[in-house]
Amino acid sequence: MKWEYDTDDDIAALATPYVRSAIAVIRTAGAHCIEKAARCFSRPKALTAAAGGTFLYGKITDPQTGEPVDEVVVSVSRAPHSYTGGDCVEISCHGSLPGIDAVLAALRAAGFRDAGPGEFTMRAFIAGKLDLTQAEAVAALIDSKTKTGHLSSLYALGGHISEELDEIRLMLIRASAAVEVQLDYAEDDLDDKVEIPVDDLRDALRRLRRLVDSYRMSRMMREGVRIALAGRTNSGKSSLFNRLLKENRSIVSDVHGTTRDYLEENVSVDGIPAVLYDTAGLRLTGDAVESEGIERTRKVLDACDLVLYVLNAADGETDEDRQRMAQLTVPYLKIWNKTDLKPAPAGIGCAVSALTGEGVPQLIAAVAERLRQSAGGSDGAQTAAVSERQRQLLERAAAAVEAALADNGGSVLDGIAIELKEALDAVGELTGETASPDILDAVFSRFCVGK
Amino acid sequence: MKWEYDTDDDIAALATPYVRSAIAVIRTAGAHCIEKAARCFSRPKALTAAAGGTFLYGKITDPQTGEPVDEVVVSVSRAPHSYTGGDCVEISCHGSLPGIDAVLAALRAAGFRDAGPGEFTMRAFIAGKLDLTQAEAVAALIDSKTKTGHLSSLYALGGHISEELDEIRLMLIRASAAVEVQLDYAEDDLDDKVEIPVDDLRDALRRLRRLVDSYRMSRMMREGVRIALAGRTNSGKSSLFNRLLKENRSIVSDVHGTTRDYLEENVSVDGIPAVLYDTAGLRLTGDAVESEGIERTRKVLDACDLVLYVLNAADGETDEDRQRMAQLTVPYLKIWNKTDLKPAPAGIGCAVSALTGEGVPQLIAAVAERLRQSAGGSDGAQTAAVSERQRQLLERAAAAVEAALADNGGSVLDGIAIELKEALDAVGELTGETASPDILDAVFSRFCVGK
Repeated sequence: MKWEYDTDDDIAALATPYVRSAIAVIRTAGAHCIEKAARCFSRPKALTAAAGGTFLYGKITDPQTGEPVDEVVVSVSRAPHSYTGGDCVEISCHGSLPGIDAVLAALRAAGFRDAGPGEFTMRAFIAGKLDLTQAEAVAALIDSKTKTGHLSSLYALGGHISEELDEIRLMLIRASAAVEVQLDYAEDDLDDKVEIPVDDLRDALRRLRRLVDSYRMSRMMREGVRIALAGRTNSGKSSLFNRLLKENRSIVSDVHGTTRDYLEENVSVDGIPAVLYDTAGLRLTGDAVESEGIERTRKVLDACDLVLYVLNAADGETDEDRQRMAQLTVPYLKIWNKTDLKPAPAGIGCAVSALTGEGVPQLIAAVAERLRQSAGGSDGAQTAAVSERQRQLLERAAAAVEAALADNGGSVLDGIAIELKEALDAVGELTGETASPDILDAVFSRFCVGK
Repeated sequence: MKWEYDTDDDIAALATPYVRSAIAVIRTAGAHCIEKAARCFSRPKALTAAAGGTFLYGKITDPQTGEPVDEVVVSVSRAPHSYTGGDCVEISCHGSLPGIDAVLAALRAAGFRDAGPGEFTMRAFIAGKLDLTQAEAVAALIDSKTKTGHLSSLYALGGHISEELDEIRLMLIRASAAVEVQLDYAEDDLDDKVEIPVDDLRDALRRLRRLVDSYRMSRMMREGVRIALAGRTNSGKSSLFNRLLKENRSIVSDVHGTTRDYLEENVSVDGIPAVLYDTAGLRLTGDAVESEGIERTRKVLDACDLVLYVLNAADGETDEDRQRMAQLTVPYLKIWNKTDLKPAPAGIGCAVSALTGEGVPQLIAAVAERLRQSAGGSDGAQTAAVSERQRQLLERAAAAVEAALADNGGSVLDGIAIELKEALDAVGELTGETASPDILDAVFSRFCVGK
């Protein structure tokens, strides 16, 4: 594998958000990072002499302009006892935006280049400190939006998916070896015919499938789901949105077309993290502004996981409603609102009154139930695949093992050998053992900068 | 001075923003913070034995539930070599929101209480590590929105205001001593009459006035100004807003009353940081939604530093416009927009075309000029007062010195003595030497949590 990445290159990046705060942390790594950081530091000798695992107080000065930049604390890690496996320097400065800019400018002047997304973790992977499932767990950990999602990613970071994959690989290798022996000695008279360990393969398949299933739920728990309120104008979407938010975020009025743009808020649906969207009412209109809002609504609806289609119980379901629902490209629930005015018709759908709050707990339960169903019902914690890449490779490995098992009844040993190799390749790509630079780029480019 | 605050109390707070990011830092301080942090740490003995200025890698576990929380780096500072002057532990964890929650929960379970705003810096002040002007500089530094503001605060943090105040105090003390001597020996025949050092007092007054003047500009450079676009509907406020933003943030249309709520964006007006508000058009309306928007507009206008009152050059200035401008409670500039349709009338005001961009650079220059005038013209860098509290006390000290100088011609020595004492008190309160707990509370409650 040709690898042109230079882990000696000195890189720097802000590792905390670019937002006013007490402290900001700027992270650096590279073969000469300590020496280069010392060029901007008020105590260069103390810094270059600092032992790994220690930190120093001092001042950053821009090495080009000589301007004072900030009072900081600088931490030194020395290879191999660091996150990346190489030397690292971390600078804790004041969380002032112009101050952060100035520290980064000083580091650039001292010879650092800006780090790309996930570049520190990529170095940790290259140094063998993490395998690829653990590296992905770092990104998933940071992205997690719930405690369950966080724990699941932490578990993966601890190497538990890797361990599971190691066991699966051992089973595949045993099976593969048995096949190879039979292929090599097919012409010979083997005294003891080597049996393909079918039970191992079945166990491997079961484990691969379980990992595949774990992904949907873990994604939902980690990233949350998108739920949009849709429906004709004046069906009470904004009131329901507010009722669900328990706060007066959206201006509610009885004028048609009030919500001209969409609004979004984070909510928890029975423990499942969700972003709730209040969208512009779907109404054919000559109003250019409102049309733009409706166009945006369509985009929101297409991208969400579940639509709550709100009907005005007092008006009933119109042809237009039926047409709108038929046009939805994602799953939806029918919600009869304004049941304080008129009871919901018998049949499918949740009945609520956004005004009185009646039926809202049942609505939330129905939404949660629907989301859990669509996620496959696993609990999302413990060993769970944490990326779409992992899910696809697990599917690939499982399909190959399944094909090998199917072929095993016949005598197509060549086919089984190829299928097992395919499964092993997929597992190798999962842990990064056989991953190409392109794959690594794809994985790490999804990280945030500074990690 | 009675002081009931206990610096031994163990406190913890998130010091980085509560936003998804590579790293988050949680800060603790207190007499038993190392011991308590060790209760949640995977290597308790290593942590309690750690020397100040070192950091350790390990895992946080909730001491109550035993649940894993995160993989972290823990830094130890030991008294007196720390920010607060007491023992401190900093925890760098992954910047995952549920992870941050879980680390804070683990610390609470280990006996920490949540730190209040500025509590770490207050401890630094109590320990004599910073005086009050430096503590305020920390808050100003974090809040700064421009490089100039940042540098000015950094300068104050370095103790330069304190030094200036020390010199002023020495002058006041010399003058005060001279007055006291004359008061004590008034009945005696003093061989050498002690002269009040009038030149010193004049110098002190000049320096105090300069510090007062520095505040407005430093505030403007640090915090930015608020500029609102106002005017009748259809005067082209949103187009001008977009032109000034150089991006399509606001939906622009030719329908009256499009901007129903206000929009805000950060802009730089010739280097001066500003928040620009696009407000709902001022129009009497029966539309309940639009009325609410107009009400919000009024609030925005009352709170801003400058209003750009936009007139449609094609329509001219109406009685309603004149009435609206007369009602403004803050300074305003008259802007003739749509000069592509009709030239602006001769007289006061800037002429622009939001459509073609003509006149926009001149408008920006005029706004910057107006802002600089109102800020008093100082450059805002170097020694500058960084808080409204400082400005008021500096005013008080200056007024007292001025009164003392005015009285000096006569023979009212008692009065001069009282005035000089008043000036010295104000200076003492500035540095915190004579500040009451109430004042300290007021100062530190403005800080962000974690500082």
